[in-house]
Amino acid sequence: MTPELQELASIDRVIHEPVRLMLMTVLYAANEADFLYLQRECGLTQGNLSSHLARLEETEYITIEKTFKGKYPLTICRLTRKGREAFEEYARKMRVVAESVG
Amino acid sequence: MTPELQELASIDRVIHEPVRLMLMTVLYAANEADFLYLQRECGLTQGNLSSHLARLEETEYITIEKTFKGKYPLTICRLTRKGREAFEEYARKMRVVAESVG
Repeated sequence: MTPELQELASIDRVIHEPVRLMLMTVLYAANEADFLYLQRECGLTQGNLSSHLARLEETEYITIEKTFKGKYPLTICRLTRKGREAFEEYARKMRVVAESVG
Repeated sequence: MTPELQELASIDRVIHEPVRLMLMTVLYAANEADFLYLQRECGLTQGNLSSHLARLEETEYITIEKTFKGKYPLTICRLTRKGREAFEEYARKMRVVAESVG
């Protein structure tokens, strides 16, 4: 097996799942975002977003802080250092695919 | 939703699955390859390879030709034009992720 293929064989499936890939791409750029912003930005239902965020929290790629803005509940998601590094590693591996096409 | 996120939301899940992504990457570079080569190159069991190739054939991304080399069966997998274009489109979308990391 070539090293490039080995990289793909060991791709991080937590990040690879398309909805989580969108979330990680947004969070990598913004570092933190609230629930409603993520929901709108990624075009997700509340339930779908919740379950994917829970999976990212479980893996310690993000933290989720529930707070208030005035009377309104506010849920802030933040990329952790572990999440940032995992996304960078993932993007490095996907570069192999992106670059295999002229 | 930004155009970049829209691209990820509509990612081709046939190609996105990690084993099939390896197979498509190899076939895109080589254009054709026999079963044993793919099995060795991607580190797959026979059953696992068979089922992923069947999925790629179903989508018309590859053709599978069963033939003989002397007495030995030989199974040749070839990327179709549709498969080549789908992979190029996929790689273009993944470039967004690859490039989002400096």
